[in-house]
Amino acid sequence: MAPTFLYAQLAHEIIHLIDKGTFQPGERLPSLRSLSENRQVSIATVSQAYLQLEAQGYLEARPQSGYYVCLRPPVLALPHSTSAPDAPAQVGKNAFISQILDESRRPGILPLGSTILDPSYLPIKHLSRLIARLAACPENHTYAPTAGFEGLRRQIARRTLDSARPIGFQEVVITSGCMEALNLALRTLAKPGDLVAVESPTFYGILQAIESLGMRVLELPTDPTTGLDLAALEQALKQHPIRVLLTIPSFQNPLGTCMPFENKLRLLAIAARSGLQIIEDDIYGEFYFREPPPTLFSLDRQQSVLLCSSFSKTLAPGFRVGWALPGRHFETFLQLKRMTSLGTASLQQLVIAEYLASGAYERHLRRLRPQLERSLLQALQMISQHFPQGIRVSRPEGGFILWLELPVGTSVMDIYKQALSVGISIAPGPLFSNRELEYPALRLSLNLPWGDRLEQALYQLGDILRQNIRH
Amino acid sequence: MAPTFLYAQLAHEIIHLIDKGTFQPGERLPSLRSLSENRQVSIATVSQAYLQLEAQGYLEARPQSGYYVCLRPPVLALPHSTSAPDAPAQVGKNAFISQILDESRRPGILPLGSTILDPSYLPIKHLSRLIARLAACPENHTYAPTAGFEGLRRQIARRTLDSARPIGFQEVVITSGCMEALNLALRTLAKPGDLVAVESPTFYGILQAIESLGMRVLELPTDPTTGLDLAALEQALKQHPIRVLLTIPSFQNPLGTCMPFENKLRLLAIAARSGLQIIEDDIYGEFYFREPPPTLFSLDRQQSVLLCSSFSKTLAPGFRVGWALPGRHFETFLQLKRMTSLGTASLQQLVIAEYLASGAYERHLRRLRPQLERSLLQALQMISQHFPQGIRVSRPEGGFILWLELPVGTSVMDIYKQALSVGISIAPGPLFSNRELEYPALRLSLNLPWGDRLEQALYQLGDILRQNIRH
Repeated sequence: MAPTFLYAQLAHEIIHLIDKGTFQPGERLPSLRSLSENRQVSIATVSQAYLQLEAQGYLEARPQSGYYVCLRPPVLALPHSTSAPDAPAQVGKNAFISQILDESRRPGILPLGSTILDPSYLPIKHLSRLIARLAACPENHTYAPTAGFEGLRRQIARRTLDSARPIGFQEVVITSGCMEALNLALRTLAKPGDLVAVESPTFYGILQAIESLGMRVLELPTDPTTGLDLAALEQALKQHPIRVLLTIPSFQNPLGTCMPFENKLRLLAIAARSGLQIIEDDIYGEFYFREPPPTLFSLDRQQSVLLCSSFSKTLAPGFRVGWALPGRHFETFLQLKRMTSLGTASLQQLVIAEYLASGAYERHLRRLRPQLERSLLQALQMISQHFPQGIRVSRPEGGFILWLELPVGTSVMDIYKQALSVGISIAPGPLFSNRELEYPALRLSLNLPWGDRLEQALYQLGDILRQNIRH
Repeated sequence: MAPTFLYAQLAHEIIHLIDKGTFQPGERLPSLRSLSENRQVSIATVSQAYLQLEAQGYLEARPQSGYYVCLRPPVLALPHSTSAPDAPAQVGKNAFISQILDESRRPGILPLGSTILDPSYLPIKHLSRLIARLAACPENHTYAPTAGFEGLRRQIARRTLDSARPIGFQEVVITSGCMEALNLALRTLAKPGDLVAVESPTFYGILQAIESLGMRVLELPTDPTTGLDLAALEQALKQHPIRVLLTIPSFQNPLGTCMPFENKLRLLAIAARSGLQIIEDDIYGEFYFREPPPTLFSLDRQQSVLLCSSFSKTLAPGFRVGWALPGRHFETFLQLKRMTSLGTASLQQLVIAEYLASGAYERHLRRLRPQLERSLLQALQMISQHFPQGIRVSRPEGGFILWLELPVGTSVMDIYKQALSVGISIAPGPLFSNRELEYPALRLSLNLPWGDRLEQALYQLGDILRQNIRH
């Protein structure tokens, strides 16, 4: 037998096994070495078979991991765009949001309504070794400088070296999570009564911050693939005295959309023309599946952007360590930080600085991203097969959340309550807007590794949806 | 020789040694056992001699430690009262305060301008063992509930059992240090533009918080022994729309005064009559030398008081764990907390909860209080002997700070700069008021154990003061 025949035959057999379901989408194939030993063929032959299957779209290679059966996202309709902007409004969602959050955080609830990653995804062991070591030194428990420890600020600055706008550590302010950064950013750029434009829908924490600061909100329409509707923004700028735009350009919460590169440039051009100030929430920026999306901040040549981010999603929520790049508002931002919280917890800053300096953070993210993608794709498969007809779903290119549009007339609050009663939390759409959303919707977080627990929960959700959707 | 003669003779000899300076104030005498062995007398005899010397005021007994030569505070004049209230004013001290703080926190500076205790005073070893153990559990790194972990809230509630108003854990909100608690308390009770009354002088962080929130300040006169001038408060309430009083009743910063019990009751009666809301900063409340001063909160029967405190002074500044007892404003306070910072760092909460539950906190405080008192008394001795004439000094009954009034015409900023140039930071008086203080003053923190380093620094300060005080 000629060697070409050998690898082609092997490839053919593998396709058969995939079609029969012996290898499921997302599963890892045997390593080159083990298959070569088991089948008594050369490693080169197995390698050639795998390469052919990769070219045919059956397999995908994952760096340092091996070959996996491709997950192909099922063809599901996307949610609709949201409509024209509303009038500026006082935000009044806080009581509702708080109630939902309280209910969803009860112990024993599978938190698919939460954007916290399951601890099994996080490098807790490594971090806790660093904690134990650094905690032994008394100096590590004194006040941190208001701007944060220089070591951590340096590491954060270094990570911008690949971007179009590398920054010095002097431009970084460490904050107590992204939430503090967003609050301080809002207070830096706007006063009570000022108008803040946001995407509709948007992260409820942003609505709460705007409400608590006595500012008003203007919700702008969004597109299910490109995010913020820039034409609508331009229109709104003519009609309303928008003081600041608070946007989540990369892997928007809850839509999952990533603003295309051209749109980012266009948004910055609008800002330059109109003097609009932008707060960029980049908390999901690291969760890309393919290419790192550039931040608005890195593309900004006019100092229009103040960036907020955090390690809460990638490392440990309970650390409460985030940061801001306040640009030309550095001094004002830092003063506010000093006046409101003095500084951020010391030990966690030092631990993260060491973790980053060792290179472990990049390795962790490289491992994490394909795991999140797999879980998301598995969930999409399952939704296409087991969820009732008429549901429209987002198709994010990063992150771990899905936005589900349900048929008009469906009570998402009923679904929310029924899911909670079987021990599953979801985030109902009304959390994400100050007005009535155009359609019933919910956000689903695929925040734990794919497995029986998640699969079972999605089955249960499918059943609940079926009972609630009237056709 | 009759036994009475023996102990009386022994006592006489010890007085002689004290007078000659063989035993210095603050030094520990030999234990009963060792002296009895050395002198070949019974333990009862030594004990009786010590008891007589204690009755005569030469010695003091310290529980579980032994007998010490009494430190008698030297007779130093007290600072003057501050004058009648100013007009309400916008606060504009922030740039100045920030500059001083930045300068004072340079590495290598002996921070006598700071109210952080030296790490040698803090139970870092014990805490770091707890940290190492608790950090290993992944669940301990997830978001804390917004109000804080129940375990810690319970421990804080338990510590109120001895007070006149024991509380349930449901009344406690954990905050990121006292500074966050004060900020949230101000935002809970007042709006931008509202008038906040404070003691004059007061902690600069309070002035900064009021400034950053766009509120106005009214500084009220104080008395060097009793603190806030209640008559002046009543007068001011008739003239100005005071929205809230922010006071530090116990061991006021920078005055060190403790509001007498009767004054606390009178203040609460004023609040009840006038509807005045009170924010009580109790961060130094645990540092009493004799009796624990009751908090305003514990005496309050009208729900006029919102208490703020922290473990930053007693355990570890870098932990950033404080708390509030918001009373009837609980819900509003909690909402604001959620909207501004989500929650407080998790691990530190769990560590402090365990530390408190083990009883170690009370033991630590019992050890710490006499150490702080000794350091303060030693410093007073030294000030009376080596500082120039004309300086007036506070005489606190708790805490570790002294407030020094300097003769009129002295430039305290020159003194501040000269001290900094020899590596010592002090807190210049202008930090503590939004207006011009009636007299030049400075705050000195005795925040490290008495020893050569502190003694040497006080010598240097004495020299600098001598060069700067014109007679």
